[in-house]
Amino acid sequence: MHTIVGTKKIGLLPADGIGKEVMPCVVKVLEALKAPFEYVNLDAGFECFERTGTALPDATVEAAKKCDGLLFGAVSSPSHKVEGYSSPIVAIRKKLDLYANVRPVVSSPVPGSLPGIDALIIRENTECLYVKDETIEDTPTGKRAVAKRVITEAASKRIAKLAYQMALKRASLHNRQGKVTIVHKSNVLSVTDGLFRESCLAVAEASELHSIKTEEQLVDSMVYRLFRDPQNFDVIVAPNMYGDIVSDGAAAVVGGLGLVPSANVGDEFIMCEPVHGSAPDIVGQQKANPIAMIRCGAMLLEHMGMGKESVAIEEAIQEAMHAGTLTPDLGGTATTTEVADFIAKRAVEIF
Amino acid sequence: MHTIVGTKKIGLLPADGIGKEVMPCVVKVLEALKAPFEYVNLDAGFECFERTGTALPDATVEAAKKCDGLLFGAVSSPSHKVEGYSSPIVAIRKKLDLYANVRPVVSSPVPGSLPGIDALIIRENTECLYVKDETIEDTPTGKRAVAKRVITEAASKRIAKLAYQMALKRASLHNRQGKVTIVHKSNVLSVTDGLFRESCLAVAEASELHSIKTEEQLVDSMVYRLFRDPQNFDVIVAPNMYGDIVSDGAAAVVGGLGLVPSANVGDEFIMCEPVHGSAPDIVGQQKANPIAMIRCGAMLLEHMGMGKESVAIEEAIQEAMHAGTLTPDLGGTATTTEVADFIAKRAVEIF
Ligand SMILES: CC(C)[C@H](C(=O)O)[C@@H](O)C(=O)O
Ligand SMILES: CC(C)[C@H](C(=O)O)[C@@H](O)C(=O)O
Repeated sequence: MHTIVGTKKIGLLPADGIGKEVMPCVVKVLEALKAPFEYVNLDAGFECFERTGTALPDATVEAAKKCDGLLFGAVSSPSHKVEGYSSPIVAIRKKLDLYANVRPVVSSPVPGSLPGIDALIIRENTECLYVKDETIEDTPTGKRAVAKRVITEAASKRIAKLAYQMALKRASLHNRQGKVTIVHKSNVLSVTDGLFRESCLAVAEASELHSIKTEEQLVDSMVYRLFRDPQNFDVIVAPNMYGDIVSDGAAAVVGGLGLVPSANVGDEFIMCEPVHGSAPDIVGQQKANPIAMIRCGAMLLEHMGMGKESVAIEEAIQEAMHAGTLTPDLGGTATTTEVADFIAKRAVEIF
Repeated sequence: MHTIVGTKKIGLLPADGIGKEVMPCVVKVLEALKAPFEYVNLDAGFECFERTGTALPDATVEAAKKCDGLLFGAVSSPSHKVEGYSSPIVAIRKKLDLYANVRPVVSSPVPGSLPGIDALIIRENTECLYVKDETIEDTPTGKRAVAKRVITEAASKRIAKLAYQMALKRASLHNRQGKVTIVHKSNVLSVTDGLFRESCLAVAEASELHSIKTEEQLVDSMVYRLFRDPQNFDVIVAPNMYGDIVSDGAAAVVGGLGLVPSANVGDEFIMCEPVHGSAPDIVGQQKANPIAMIRCGAMLLEHMGMGKESVAIEEAIQEAMHAGTLTPDLGGTATTTEVADFIAKRAVEIF
C-alpha cells in the first residue's frame, strides 16, 4: 500500500463468485509493479444483496465516487426472479454515468483464438433496453409485458464521438486507415436504430474524421461476420444490447471470456471489469482465469497515464501464454494463483 | 407444371437480388421430382416497392392466402430511411400469423463448418421489437426515440409448445434425451424476458414433456456458447430479435448463410425462406449458393407429407458437397445453375 504524493484511490468491487478470486490477482500484479494506488474494498453483488437487502448499497456508490478509478469483479445473476434484486453492474454504470463500455478484442497465442484479430468494441452503456422501463398487465389472453428501448441523439452522438476518436488514435498509432463499423438493425427498427445510425453518421461528417472509413452492419449480420471474418474489424460501435451480445461473441473467437477485459468510461472516471461472469460452477477450485481481470488492471494503469506499466503487464501475459502457464479454460493445468504469480513476477522484470 | 388431383398451389416470392436467382433453382428441383405443385408468381420486395409504391401489395397477400404454401427468396433492406418502405418479410409473417420461425442448423462436409452440430432454432416470429411500435420526439438535448418490446404469455407459450414438441419428436427419432435451451436476458429484462422464461418453463411442466431437459442461456452467453460448443445444443427457443441474431450466428458455424433454410410456420400454413439476404454484391454473377433455397423446397415437401422427396433432395445436396460441386462462398468454382442442376439430377436418381 503506497501513500506517496499522487497516490490514486482505487475502489475494489469483487462482488460474487470468481470475482472474489481474480480480484486479489490484479491487486497482486499492481502491487508488484508498485503502482501508486491505495485500495478501498467496496461491497456489491448478489451475495451483498442476500446479506444487506441491496446489491449496490448507497455507501458503496458514495465511496466509489470518491475514488479515482474502480475495479469490478463479476456479479451473479440469478435467472429466477428475486424480489427487490437488480443487477448492480447496470446500476453503477448509470449512477456514475459511465457512458461507454470499451472492449478490446485481440487474438492470443492460445487454443481457440483465431489469428489476426484486433478490434475495439465501443458499447453504449446507459440506454437502449437497459433503461429497464418495463410494465406488465393482465389481458383476457394472459399476461402482456412491454419494455421500452430508448435511443437518444445525445447519447448516440457521444458514443459515436468516442468511437471515431479511438479509430483516429489507433489509425495514427498503426499508421493505417481507420474504420468504424456501426451496428444497428434499422431495417426493422427504422426509428430507434435509424436515430442511432444517423447520429453516428453525423459525427463521422466532422472534418477531422474524414480519413476514417465508415461501415454498417445489421446486428444479425455482425454476429455472422464476427465468426466468419473477425479480422475485418477495427472499431465497432453499437447500442447497449447489441454491444453486449457482440462483445461476448467476439470474446469467443479470441480464446474465450477468460481473456477479455473492459473499461466502463465516463468523462472523468473509469471502472474496469472483465467481460466474464461469476462462473459459479468453478468457484473455489483455483480454476478461474485471472488474465481478463489482470488486463483490467492494465487498462486502468493506461488510463491513468502509466502506459509503461500497462505494456509490461501485457507482455508478461503474452509470455504466460507462450509458456503455457494457463488455466484449464485454455487447456492448461495452472491454478489461478500460479498464473497471477507468473504474470506479477515477469511484469516486474520486464518493467 | 402438374394439375393432377391433390395438386398444391405454391406461391413464389423471389423478391430482390439473389432471391430471383435461387428461386428458379428450387423450382427446377421440385419439378424434376414431379412434386404435385402448381406455382404462382407473387410480387414483393424493395424493387416491387420502387415499382408500385408498396413492398407487399394487398394482391400478393390475398393471393398468398389462397396458396397451400409459399417460398420466399430474399429482400433488400436499404439501410438509409426510405419514406413509406417497410420490410415485406416482417409484414407477411405477421399478416399470415406465421408465428414460428424454424431454423435447422446442421454441420455440413464443407470448409468453415464445425463438426457434430445438429440444432433446431425456434424463433418467435410475431412480437418482441418486431411489433415496430416506435415513436420519436424532440427534446431540449436532441431527438429521443422509443421502441416498444412486447412479450405476451400467449405467444411465448405457443412458441414454447412448438419447441418442446419438436424436441420430443427429435428425441424419439434419434432415441436420445431431448433438450430445449431457453434464450433470454432476464438478468436485465426481468419483466419481459422474465415472462418469456416463465411461460416456457410453465409449458415444460406438462407431463408428456418431462423427459425433455430444460436449459437456459442469457442471449450474450448463448452467442458465446454457439461459437465455443455448438454441438451442445438440440432445440433452442428464443424471442424474435434474439432468435434473429442467434440464427445468423449459428449459420456461421455450419458453413455459412448459403446453406441454411428456414420455415415460417403458422397453424395451417408454411412459408420457407433461406436465412440469407439478397446479397446485392454478387447479383448477376452466378455466384449465389442455391442450397439454402433448395433446402427450403425440401422443408416444404416434408411439411406436405412428401418426406421421401425431401430426403432425396438432402442426399443429393450432401453428394454435391462431397463432390465439391460448390459455389465460391464454399471455396468452389461451380455456378448457381451448375449446383442446382447437379442436385436436381441426383435427387431424381436417388428418389
Ligand atoms: C451482467 C449483465 C447485466 C451484463 C450486461 O448485460 O451488461 C454483462 O453481460 C456484461 O456484458 O457486462
Ligand atoms: C430482413 C430482416 C427483416 C429479417 C429479420 O430480421 O427477421 C432477416 O434478418 C431474417 O432473419 O429473416
